[in-house]
Amino acid sequence: MHQNLTIALDAMGGDHGPGVVIPAALDCIERNPSLKLILVGDEGIIRTRLGSSLERWGDRISLHHASQVVEMHELPSKALRGKKDSSMRVAIDLVKHGAASACVSAGNTGALMATAKFVLKTIPGIDRPAIIATVPSKGGHTYVLDLGANVECTAEHLYQFAIMGHELVCAVEDKTAPRVGLLNVGEEEIKGNEQVKQAARLLADSHVNFIGFVEGNDIFSDNVDIVVTDGFVGNVALKTLEGLAKMIGLSLKAGFEKNIWTRLAGLAALPVLKAFKQQYDPRRYNGASLVGLTGIVIKSHGNADRLAFANAINIAVKEVEKAVPGRIGERLTERLSEGKFA
Amino acid sequence: MHQNLTIALDAMGGDHGPGVVIPAALDCIERNPSLKLILVGDEGIIRTRLGSSLERWGDRISLHHASQVVEMHELPSKALRGKKDSSMRVAIDLVKHGAASACVSAGNTGALMATAKFVLKTIPGIDRPAIIATVPSKGGHTYVLDLGANVECTAEHLYQFAIMGHELVCAVEDKTAPRVGLLNVGEEEIKGNEQVKQAARLLADSHVNFIGFVEGNDIFSDNVDIVVTDGFVGNVALKTLEGLAKMIGLSLKAGFEKNIWTRLAGLAALPVLKAFKQQYDPRRYNGASLVGLTGIVIKSHGNADRLAFANAINIAVKEVEKAVPGRIGERLTERLSEGKFA
Repeated sequence: MHQNLTIALDAMGGDHGPGVVIPAALDCIERNPSLKLILVGDEGIIRTRLGSSLERWGDRISLHHASQVVEMHELPSKALRGKKDSSMRVAIDLVKHGAASACVSAGNTGALMATAKFVLKTIPGIDRPAIIATVPSKGGHTYVLDLGANVECTAEHLYQFAIMGHELVCAVEDKTAPRVGLLNVGEEEIKGNEQVKQAARLLADSHVNFIGFVEGNDIFSDNVDIVVTDGFVGNVALKTLEGLAKMIGLSLKAGFEKNIWTRLAGLAALPVLKAFKQQYDPRRYNGASLVGLTGIVIKSHGNADRLAFANAINIAVKEVEKAVPGRIGERLTERLSEGKFA
Repeated sequence: MHQNLTIALDAMGGDHGPGVVIPAALDCIERNPSLKLILVGDEGIIRTRLGSSLERWGDRISLHHASQVVEMHELPSKALRGKKDSSMRVAIDLVKHGAASACVSAGNTGALMATAKFVLKTIPGIDRPAIIATVPSKGGHTYVLDLGANVECTAEHLYQFAIMGHELVCAVEDKTAPRVGLLNVGEEEIKGNEQVKQAARLLADSHVNFIGFVEGNDIFSDNVDIVVTDGFVGNVALKTLEGLAKMIGLSLKAGFEKNIWTRLAGLAALPVLKAFKQQYDPRRYNGASLVGLTGIVIKSHGNADRLAFANAINIAVKEVEKAVPGRIGERLTERLSEGKFA
């Protein structure tokens, strides 16, 4: 490992703040001997929570005080203007100044995106960062972007999302030609809207392995690796699948808790149900990348627990090791020099 | 029951044609003594399939010959121009001429929509028909529209969808103020795109019980009855939930079929798994209405089986009994006369 594996954590972000971030940080420190973490936030609170761990891990855990916290429902513009010493902002600043090679926050998504974009800027050739994450699929998992950063997209934006998704997946999954699909509907005579149709033409002409249009159900199949869509559709699809998975989980649980006989049946079925639960455990999918920026910023679910937040840290580790923004930048520089972009 | 409960069935449509439509038709005839059915398609094939049932049910089952069949992947415009004697077209014609009060088809969605719109026309005040169907939710089920008829929608279209959904649900579910939500994303500073924001303003000013923006996961909650969105987003959400439900079902099945012990556990858990399967059985949700037309047209899934197709017929029955297009028409006439529409 050649990279500086130092990751800044917004210790105050999310529904649980340091109560989740610090235990998750300690889990990761324990498991990955190359990892260093900077905990950003209220020094007093963090120090108390860390207790003897601070001494125990020496220079592998450090503190960086930040006096403010971005609230979960604060307007991004307000956070950006008014909270220059927030734990979120300072964590991103540490990435900008090279003190950290990535940051992770469970804070307000809009504020994180706005701040990261303002501080880190987009890679030349990329107009807008996007949010990319994995969802479970038959073959393992599928990457989907954009998950909500851009509610209105042109064909060019969709095209750029595909390029970013391609480079990220090549890097992180060690693939050479991940299959890229453009999310569309199947019912129209000439399928889809103008943006999607034009993006398909751009992608057919590109270096990515574009397999054409895919539909919502294909996300879970094993015939596509990266599903590209705008942030409105992507966010609705993500929330829909989260909502359905939750409802199904609860109704299975209720079914087995109905009476003494169903409880006994549940006991018999426990190993199967446990394996099933683990396969779809949303905590294993926690951690979305704000891709297209000059640095690595990972967004954790606001209500992430210790295991889920640790997963988001692991995603940051992987992206640092694989130098994702650098790869995207190189590819875009090549293409800019070939005159492929306006 | 005052209505003429005669329903025309496109006997040739769908992946299985008469092999599914005719058994489903006989099931419905047997269960509902007021129902009459007209089977539209190749008379020879239908007569053979019906066998002695034709005589048995007297005038409750009749045949109407149609010499053509719309293929599942045929271009809607081609079907509309070139197949004026298709089983689909003739079934819709029967509705137009009053011989039937509704029709049901498992054929090509695009062709069905194009033909129905051409033959039946939209209700005055409605620009475009939409596709509405139910999906399972915590509280029972939620109506969602549009599911794919209109990939690009203005705020006015979304508004009209909400009005149609409201009237349909009031009629079919005997509700007075079903809760209408507008599908949106939760992450943006000023949420959503222009269409959604403007539609929200129109709905806030309308007679429907508009509860504001909802997100993808709310579809499955019990806090909304009708979710309004454009056909692109609605179709992706529907396909996403279908795909996830299928994957989850298969992986539970695989889990219980792993070895002799899991099979025994599955046997013990059978009553719970059966109840669970039934609750989410997509066949129970089969049948989408092409709402906004002057007549009732129900679209069945192409791969519907007997039980699923019978469910689509039942939806047609309910809409005839509740005179859904008439209700929507009356409401729109009122509003047109109040000058609420341009």
